[in-house]
Amino acid sequence: MLVVMDHNATKEQIDTVVKIIEGRGLTARPIPGGQRVSIGILNNTGPVDTSLFAGLPGVKEAIAVTRPYKLVSREVKTEDTIVDVGGIKIGNGSLTILAGPCAIENEAQAFTIAEKVKASGAHIFRGGAFKPRTSPYSFQGLGEAGLEILSRVRDKFNMPVVTEAMDYETFELVEEHADIIQIGTRNMQNYTLLKRAGLSPKPILLKRGMAATVEEFLMAAEYILERGNNHVILCERGVRTFVDHSRNTLDLSAIPVIKKESHLPIIVDPSHAAGKREQVLPLSRAAVAAEADGLMVEVHHDPSRAMSDGAQSLYPEQFDVLCRHAAAVYDSFHL
Amino acid sequence: MLVVMDHNATKEQIDTVVKIIEGRGLTARPIPGGQRVSIGILNNTGPVDTSLFAGLPGVKEAIAVTRPYKLVSREVKTEDTIVDVGGIKIGNGSLTILAGPCAIENEAQAFTIAEKVKASGAHIFRGGAFKPRTSPYSFQGLGEAGLEILSRVRDKFNMPVVTEAMDYETFELVEEHADIIQIGTRNMQNYTLLKRAGLSPKPILLKRGMAATVEEFLMAAEYILERGNNHVILCERGVRTFVDHSRNTLDLSAIPVIKKESHLPIIVDPSHAAGKREQVLPLSRAAVAAEADGLMVEVHHDPSRAMSDGAQSLYPEQFDVLCRHAAAVYDSFHL
Amino acid sequence: MLVVMDHNATKEQIDTVVKIIEGRGLTARPIPGGQRVSIGILNNTGPVDTSLFAGLPGVKEAIAVTRPYKLVSREVKTEDTIVDVGGIKIGNGSLTILAGPCAIENEAQAFTIAEKVKASGAHIFRGGAFKPRTSPYSFQGLGEAGLEILSRVRDKFNMPVVTEAMDYETFELVEEHADIIQIGTRNMQNYTLLKRAGLSPKPILLKRGMAATVEEFLMAAEYILERGNNHVILCERGVRTFVDHSRNTLDLSAIPVIKKESHLPIIVDPSHAAGKREQVLPLSRAAVAAEADGLMVEVHHDPSRAMSDGAQSLYPEQFDVLCRHAAAVYDSFHL
Amino acid sequence: MLVVMDHNATKEQIDTVVKIIEGRGLTARPIPGGQRVSIGILNNTGPVDTSLFAGLPGVKEAIAVTRPYKLVSREVKTEDTIVDVGGIKIGNGSLTILAGPCAIENEAQAFTIAEKVKASGAHIFRGGAFKPRTSPYSFQGLGEAGLEILSRVRDKFNMPVVTEAMDYETFELVEEHADIIQIGTRNMQNYTLLKRAGLSPKPILLKRGMAATVEEFLMAAEYILERGNNHVILCERGVRTFVDHSRNTLDLSAIPVIKKESHLPIIVDPSHAAGKREQVLPLSRAAVAAEADGLMVEVHHDPSRAMSDGAQSLYPEQFDVLCRHAAAVYDSFHL
Repeated sequence: MLVVMDHNATKEQIDTVVKIIEGRGLTARPIPGGQRVSIGILNNTGPVDTSLFAGLPGVKEAIAVTRPYKLVSREVKTEDTIVDVGGIKIGNGSLTILAGPCAIENEAQAFTIAEKVKASGAHIFRGGAFKPRTSPYSFQGLGEAGLEILSRVRDKFNMPVVTEAMDYETFELVEEHADIIQIGTRNMQNYTLLKRAGLSPKPILLKRGMAATVEEFLMAAEYILERGNNHVILCERGVRTFVDHSRNTLDLSAIPVIKKESHLPIIVDPSHAAGKREQVLPLSRAAVAAEADGLMVEVHHDPSRAMSDGAQSLYPEQFDVLCRHAAAVYDSFHL
Repeated sequence: MLVVMDHNATKEQIDTVVKIIEGRGLTARPIPGGQRVSIGILNNTGPVDTSLFAGLPGVKEAIAVTRPYKLVSREVKTEDTIVDVGGIKIGNGSLTILAGPCAIENEAQAFTIAEKVKASGAHIFRGGAFKPRTSPYSFQGLGEAGLEILSRVRDKFNMPVVTEAMDYETFELVEEHADIIQIGTRNMQNYTLLKRAGLSPKPILLKRGMAATVEEFLMAAEYILERGNNHVILCERGVRTFVDHSRNTLDLSAIPVIKKESHLPIIVDPSHAAGKREQVLPLSRAAVAAEADGLMVEVHHDPSRAMSDGAQSLYPEQFDVLCRHAAAVYDSFHL
Repeated sequence: MLVVMDHNATKEQIDTVVKIIEGRGLTARPIPGGQRVSIGILNNTGPVDTSLFAGLPGVKEAIAVTRPYKLVSREVKTEDTIVDVGGIKIGNGSLTILAGPCAIENEAQAFTIAEKVKASGAHIFRGGAFKPRTSPYSFQGLGEAGLEILSRVRDKFNMPVVTEAMDYETFELVEEHADIIQIGTRNMQNYTLLKRAGLSPKPILLKRGMAATVEEFLMAAEYILERGNNHVILCERGVRTFVDHSRNTLDLSAIPVIKKESHLPIIVDPSHAAGKREQVLPLSRAAVAAEADGLMVEVHHDPSRAMSDGAQSLYPEQFDVLCRHAAAVYDSFHL
Repeated sequence: MLVVMDHNATKEQIDTVVKIIEGRGLTARPIPGGQRVSIGILNNTGPVDTSLFAGLPGVKEAIAVTRPYKLVSREVKTEDTIVDVGGIKIGNGSLTILAGPCAIENEAQAFTIAEKVKASGAHIFRGGAFKPRTSPYSFQGLGEAGLEILSRVRDKFNMPVVTEAMDYETFELVEEHADIIQIGTRNMQNYTLLKRAGLSPKPILLKRGMAATVEEFLMAAEYILERGNNHVILCERGVRTFVDHSRNTLDLSAIPVIKKESHLPIIVDPSHAAGKREQVLPLSRAAVAAEADGLMVEVHHDPSRAMSDGAQSLYPEQFDVLCRHAAAVYDSFHL
């Protein structure tokens, strides 16, 4: 950390800062500059809380230099993490497609969609059984019955399934049925849930919070790794901005940043970012072009009757085009 | 809802929309305009999901007209909700001050601060026992031991206490000790927690999510009321924007908007919005001037040794000024 | 427009709204709903100002239904606008590459870079002569001398050149030398400049404001078309958000939205969105994959000595890779 | 500036950075830390461009430590700047009220409103003659005729007048008639206009750009001071965020930050921030409570017929309440 002093900070104020640093067992190194003194902090093993200094008399600002994350950092582990889900590898340089409806509505719906997305090239089936909904009056998912349908989808179509766990209470139930356990956007900083996920033997798909910086996103993953589960797949799904023509704004520069900072794989969910069917295809191609490790896409055979998020669900024939385009874009700059 | 058609939408496309509306038991009323047809939806008892229409051929956009919330709405309950906490009334037109440290560190610290904030005029003591922290390596709170210290603060100083519940598992424990149970920013859409809070006999202090619209904020409160707990206090604490001179941007226009839309009381947390001590006093006065029902402020007698958020904690003598200013501003336009 | 009344609006309040509408020569059509009355406005030839109604007693909100733009709208002109710059066509379905340094520094620099970017496949040379800079102490560009160097680049390398006009005073000078005149982000709502551009015979490259909605962006273009210049190329360059790992957040969903709403071509500037060299390549590929009509990229042969924006300038060899990747991605889903 | 190196940066990479620094005549001071080397830059008289280093091999990031502004900085001038407008002093610790219609429509309208706002306590009359409008089809202001009406308002009511200059061409005309010249939000980074304002003998009211950081805002003011005009009044008017219940989000923490960083006075425009009449009163009180040096408020005697921004204009009787509340709040914590 660098503690920048006011240009007219007194010697006493500088000494106070030095004392606080040394009181924590760290080394303080004052750096006299042309206009003001700055004080570097050395020999810290982890990050130092900037708030220790930010409000002190004579201090202009405290600037963090070291990153706060460890286990997710590429400085700690150089090689890419590859998550293996029943033989399907995420993060090994190939492109993985996850697809299915927003919510599992019944077996017929799930089977119809699974058959179609598999035929188009999807590797993993997605579908919600426990649904976090903005309104208590909206459909909340089939719960355990939905999980059982997902298990039957896996058996019948030989596809791993991913579904969301919303809380500690039902985590074990989800864990029994899912091949990948999703932690949703609204729960990115639900630490009880993250800690539970850290104890799971199953891979975790962690979605970025709507207002999370990349640093906060990686710190959320750090909670999972810290408990012992290294199988974390990150998912960019758009952030909240003033833009009103899409539900959220897909932040594709997060992909190169995360790949540089961390060894974890990162996929993209264009459906929730867009909120509108017609933007899903171009955003999917763009995500692949930005080197996402995979795409997670909502598909429904009858979106106007979907029980949630119909407007962003692709028709199966649109998803078929998407798979072909995604593969073509991927190949174009990898060959 | 209003479904706005493309200017060149075909009659068939219009008929499809009408059929979908009527298939849901609602009334469709096409309104031919100069440039395009719009279709109003009547006789809906609750909100209709715009996504049913937003992606259909020929549809330009679907605009929600009815608000999605019910129980929190002033249209349902005209008079202000007043939350009574051991005789202290929040929402009755007076100004309530909640103050204390970010985290309970030990009994001596809690007693020292409680004594000072009470002397300055605080009505309710705040302090975290379970702390949601961005980093797994940061101090996570004293847990149950912290709750017990809070109980002793209440007994010794005769002040109600507010503290955060982070999850379903420890909710009951918090419920035993707290007079008001806080649900934090990061948990505003933790629906399992909201539903549990809805079953509690204790008042709930619900903080606005960092990227939540007022509508989403009220929908989160709706989850609590829907389960039967009407004692909800809303708390504005800043939203995430591009602004970098404060931790978040305090959204004071939310106060008149919420007071118009809802009967629930709303207080303001200037400490977390600012993230810096020096902004807390002006933001506190501003919140009172915008007619907040209360202020929740972080105070620490030795911020440079605080175990969390020291930079935004006021010194007790600063808090004393704050209480005097807040009361003066309140009186100035209420007399 | 739709004027939505409060659920308890009085008959008089409704009548007042109707009278205001009719007083403007329009048709008011009240639509009684289950919970409240809404009033549609018909027969308006242009948009009606929502602020006429938004603050009236009994009015809940006024919702614009008709778009405010005309000449830029695809409803007015169905076929794509193709801008022809010395035989190079932008908006005809091909991919146009514009490249060069942020600022023209001297002839040798310009010639060195022009030679390299042309060899890699750039169609148009970019370079600033008048530079809008955040600081008055930063290099402000060579001015007319820079324009003359640009003219020599065109002659020597047979490439059209694009450069920015910052104000009305120097517009004519820029017009003499440039093949495309750029209006920068900070000037997107400089109406004097837009009106002047509307009188120019040269194509205009209009960059999106950092905080502009797509609607405001199209309205800025409307100013240019309204004065008679139809040769407008739009440029997405990122919007300001809370995200701090890139200078701005590239909003790629703007591309499909603009292509649906407008007939104007749209290109992408990944360099200014990123602000960092290492993000430019993935964002460029992503922009092509989202169907941008072109890319505008900063290139410098010696970025550490560049007089502005060195950190985001590509080395010529990186630009060469970019051109190959962009072409490959483009081909992949167009063949 | 501090250049932070990668944890595995090579000695050569570090040497390259040192050489670049020294090549600019500055002093480089490498600071070996526990995990990585950082390099401080000393003896710079002005800010150094971070982009010189940000993209170099082995560099993790470049962090600006010195502020880029000079003349506006309180480090350069300690005492508050007081702007004197015909005897009315802005920035001397008192509260100045500027009020009037969004646009001057005709003499009768201007006189009617001026009479009322003066009676309520306004010190300065505001009204637009040249109006920057999002749409080319909206009323663009009366131009010179509007300026002449403003001059007559000054003469008749003995109030200084403030009005906007939109461009260099008409600046002189505005300068002749106005007592304070406003530079609007959309022109905050119109450098040609800022430089012209810097040559004016009249005070300048500079509004914050919708997406401007405080640093950019102060840099825009720096352009004016740098040319010799020290009479600059800053105006906070809300920033663009995801929040949709007000037109923009008023950023009141900007007031204490600007007062700490700069000696210039800062007033608040609650009308444009709100965009809705009903939020103007609470936001006005809040701005005074946050220690704004003044308020600029839109008032119209017949808002439903106003030619622009009717929805946010107060009725004269509402403005009268506002003046009384503002004075009471001001007094409450200044006495």
